[in-house]
Amino acid sequence: MKHSIAFIGLGRMGQAMATNLLLAGHQLTVYNRTPDKAERLQDRGARLAATPADAVREAEVVFTMLSDDAVLRDVATGDEGFLEAMPRGAVHASCSTVAPATNRELAELHQEQGTWLVAAPVFGKPIVAANGQLWVCLSGAAEGKTRLAPLLPAFSQGSFDLGSDAGAANVLKLCGNFMLGAAIEAMAEAFTLAEKSGLNRLEVFEILTTTLFNSPAYRSYGRMIAEEDYQPAGAAPYILQKDLRLTLAEARTHQVPMPVANIILDHLTATVARHDSADEDWTSFARRISEGAGLHR
Amino acid sequence: MKHSIAFIGLGRMGQAMATNLLLAGHQLTVYNRTPDKAERLQDRGARLAATPADAVREAEVVFTMLSDDAVLRDVATGDEGFLEAMPRGAVHASCSTVAPATNRELAELHQEQGTWLVAAPVFGKPIVAANGQLWVCLSGAAEGKTRLAPLLPAFSQGSFDLGSDAGAANVLKLCGNFMLGAAIEAMAEAFTLAEKSGLNRLEVFEILTTTLFNSPAYRSYGRMIAEEDYQPAGAAPYILQKDLRLTLAEARTHQVPMPVANIILDHLTATVARHDSADEDWTSFARRISEGAGLHR
Amino acid sequence: MKHSIAFIGLGRMGQAMATNLLLAGHQLTVYNRTPDKAERLQDRGARLAATPADAVREAEVVFTMLSDDAVLRDVATGDEGFLEAMPRGAVHASCSTVAPATNRELAELHQEQGTWLVAAPVFGKPIVAANGQLWVCLSGAAEGKTRLAPLLPAFSQGSFDLGSDAGAANVLKLCGNFMLGAAIEAMAEAFTLAEKSGLNRLEVFEILTTTLFNSPAYRSYGRMIAEEDYQPAGAAPYILQKDLRLTLAEARTHQVPMPVANIILDHLTATVARHDSADEDWTSFARRISEGAGLHR
Amino acid sequence: MKHSIAFIGLGRMGQAMATNLLLAGHQLTVYNRTPDKAERLQDRGARLAATPADAVREAEVVFTMLSDDAVLRDVATGDEGFLEAMPRGAVHASCSTVAPATNRELAELHQEQGTWLVAAPVFGKPIVAANGQLWVCLSGAAEGKTRLAPLLPAFSQGSFDLGSDAGAANVLKLCGNFMLGAAIEAMAEAFTLAEKSGLNRLEVFEILTTTLFNSPAYRSYGRMIAEEDYQPAGAAPYILQKDLRLTLAEARTHQVPMPVANIILDHLTATVARHDSADEDWTSFARRISEGAGLHR
Repeated sequence: MKHSIAFIGLGRMGQAMATNLLLAGHQLTVYNRTPDKAERLQDRGARLAATPADAVREAEVVFTMLSDDAVLRDVATGDEGFLEAMPRGAVHASCSTVAPATNRELAELHQEQGTWLVAAPVFGKPIVAANGQLWVCLSGAAEGKTRLAPLLPAFSQGSFDLGSDAGAANVLKLCGNFMLGAAIEAMAEAFTLAEKSGLNRLEVFEILTTTLFNSPAYRSYGRMIAEEDYQPAGAAPYILQKDLRLTLAEARTHQVPMPVANIILDHLTATVARHDSADEDWTSFARRISEGAGLHR
Repeated sequence: MKHSIAFIGLGRMGQAMATNLLLAGHQLTVYNRTPDKAERLQDRGARLAATPADAVREAEVVFTMLSDDAVLRDVATGDEGFLEAMPRGAVHASCSTVAPATNRELAELHQEQGTWLVAAPVFGKPIVAANGQLWVCLSGAAEGKTRLAPLLPAFSQGSFDLGSDAGAANVLKLCGNFMLGAAIEAMAEAFTLAEKSGLNRLEVFEILTTTLFNSPAYRSYGRMIAEEDYQPAGAAPYILQKDLRLTLAEARTHQVPMPVANIILDHLTATVARHDSADEDWTSFARRISEGAGLHR
Repeated sequence: MKHSIAFIGLGRMGQAMATNLLLAGHQLTVYNRTPDKAERLQDRGARLAATPADAVREAEVVFTMLSDDAVLRDVATGDEGFLEAMPRGAVHASCSTVAPATNRELAELHQEQGTWLVAAPVFGKPIVAANGQLWVCLSGAAEGKTRLAPLLPAFSQGSFDLGSDAGAANVLKLCGNFMLGAAIEAMAEAFTLAEKSGLNRLEVFEILTTTLFNSPAYRSYGRMIAEEDYQPAGAAPYILQKDLRLTLAEARTHQVPMPVANIILDHLTATVARHDSADEDWTSFARRISEGAGLHR
Repeated sequence: MKHSIAFIGLGRMGQAMATNLLLAGHQLTVYNRTPDKAERLQDRGARLAATPADAVREAEVVFTMLSDDAVLRDVATGDEGFLEAMPRGAVHASCSTVAPATNRELAELHQEQGTWLVAAPVFGKPIVAANGQLWVCLSGAAEGKTRLAPLLPAFSQGSFDLGSDAGAANVLKLCGNFMLGAAIEAMAEAFTLAEKSGLNRLEVFEILTTTLFNSPAYRSYGRMIAEEDYQPAGAAPYILQKDLRLTLAEARTHQVPMPVANIILDHLTATVARHDSADEDWTSFARRISEGAGLHR
């Protein structure tokens, strides 16, 4: 069955997801602050809206995939925001990596409007999104999740339901991104030690990701670190810096010491502060270790 | 073809490997400081030697799987040590997790005797060894590796050749153990954050190790951390404390900063210092995080 | 010359400062959310106001010494807040350890009202405040600082002017508190190492604070750590946890990696999360080290 | 009363101490591996010996001030080593920053020879040594300390007796050097935060070291960090890297987690690995923080 969908936020991830929704035959209205990012989608039949509110007036489901909490709040509840323009009974699938509390607060506003918020952050790089192979974490009101479910196969290989707390799915997303950062840091330390001990980084990468660590994350990030080539950029360092800040903010709220998260954020911070990775993937924070070891000066 | 083999060191790993060599039809002479650990192997046909030297006098291949550098040196070159008792042309497969430099030094002594040392550390828990599914990292003289190769399928699913440096395989082994420690620490931090944010640890474990981290290491260690049940003990905390010390000693030799390795060693040190994990797996250092967060007092 | 002063916030520090202002002969009106803390000051001649607004209606200078940013904002700009009730030309001496941005924002509101905000955080424990020996860091509008200056000797031995940025003095205050935390952590690590090496903690403390580290901070905090007796409580762990969070928030705003600040905050967080230091000074986070070393189980 | 003294090791510290012993009127025989460093002392009346053994044959007290454990062992017990050449009843004042265990082992060898080892590490930079204002930490046999005592005022303002364990004084010395490193790291983090928040580093330094941290160590190291001028070099980064390694080795022996010591060693390691501080004081590891914050690229 075809649905009327609004998609707000057309960065690398948003474009790939929206494209797959179009290809699945749904009617799409899109919005992006810089409208030129909508061109390819318009060529494939999407309608471009002038404001967030305009984008959603006939939508059954509104997807948002935005860069941070402030942008999401603004697009939802600012001038021309979409929240009050949604038809009663419509569902907001909130896919951005934002603070759990942000989704909880918006969920309450939706409830007052007779609409639903379902937190729906995804795992996977843009290329994975383009291949329709994302994983989706869901949490929020059961009725909203039921309505959203039929749309997910367009861009994902599976989903997980974390219950009714609209913040829960984003807690999991933050945990996952932190664990990716820890894996990157660990490989950076290990491969640098191996290199300075006379081994070949790429060989070490191949052995470890064939045996103990043969998972997609270790293979895709590990190759970048082994080759020290951080392109193409799936997500920029400042994006993951924001994610780690959210992780540590959540850790502070709940009184959890996270010493490895601190290290990753410090390395991302140095990477952003030095402006030397503008076009590189966030994995490039691995350079903090090879630099510290005196390589590649 | 059946070979005459000596196996020295019958801890959990050594017993499992020796048993599989016996089952593959080889003739086995075994030695252990506490001889009662040899009983099961004797029941299956192994001969028990009274000293390391006695164990190797007719061996084509001598396996050692010992707890640390000091024990290996003593068994090889101390009173009744085996090194000078080996027949010319025999191979010493050094499987223990020791410093790369220890294997390099022993390799030189072997060369003077007309024997070979092949560094052959393995990846896998005792249960994996029992199932014959270890991975073996090899380095050292080519001729030694050629002679050793036919014996490896008895306990392993594959091997990797890291070249002629007798220290190289153990550098890789130390990198792998460190990366396991980093994965454990990351899961401890993530699962604790999730729990204190209202999520279910086991559910978080299932989702993350089904998607981004679906590798055997994350699944086997992750379940322990999610359930906070650190039994059965594959390797005790003091064993991995020793391994991390070796990792950081190598890092110091080569001037490599390893901030996450420092954290793991500190957590293992606290675990050993507090004597509260005697019968538990080393993964139990994950408790440092849940304790720090005020859980399980 | 005697002045009409309002003093808002009568915790340990506020009481000591207000008492000294009274003793210097000034007219004092005080306000505290729990009014019983004002009793001793009333006995000495202070007037107790029912609301923050009532406290300041005739004040030339309004001191605030409150527990955090939220309380300061509420007392200044909430219902019955004092900001709009101050006479034109009056000065708000903002002494709390709050975010630099909070003082900057309030300074703008004051300017619109024709009043002045001077950031005036202080260094020193309650006993130092009682002895009139605090140090004051000042920043903000020159005219405000000029009016405030004559009142400072009542409770301080000196002051420093950090210029016109109303946030600057609190940046310095956060730097100072972080450096105290680093000194405590360093002594905790050093004294624990010394103890486990067979030395006497108190002897080590005496030698090091007689020679390299003969400053008041090392002597007063160091004795607590050497004796492992964290009473009396100058400031509770949750107070300094808040301060370190502010420090790290400022570090994130300005992209500064602060690895030692992370460690101190983690240790304070564990101390607060475990609720085991309720009546103890924040210095008690030093216990994280002796516990990690297996002492005092 | 004038004594016959041997002084072995004429680096910056050794030269300053030896000069003061000469100026105090004692008879000095000196030895250094590179003999040209003895020239100034010869000009003032010292005799130059060709070997360590030759230097001590008539000495009542033998001072050693050497770069590390290996050099001390070699000069004491290697070919032409001095240990067996000392007259019975003579005292070896071991001033180098070496492992506690090294002094303990040498003390036993001395006892077999009928001589004494007194551990006598000092606190203070070369300029402080030149001014005769060092602090000396003593431990070892009481009789040795009694014989050494009259010589100490020539170069020190005071001494501390840590008892009969020949290792104790060096445990304290390692604690002190670690605490200096922690103070440097803390100032680096604080001053960088202050600078990026718009404050003046030098002003922040002045205020904090006038108030909370008015000790000689904070003032002398702090000025270098505030001005980011790490000359003249009191001790090179590789020297303190060695000291921190000794500290952490002692921590490992005694199962003490030292997270801040790890950070300092990592920063010193990066400083040495990058070879960019050859002529600078070890304080220059403070650059790791300003670099991480994107300053001074």
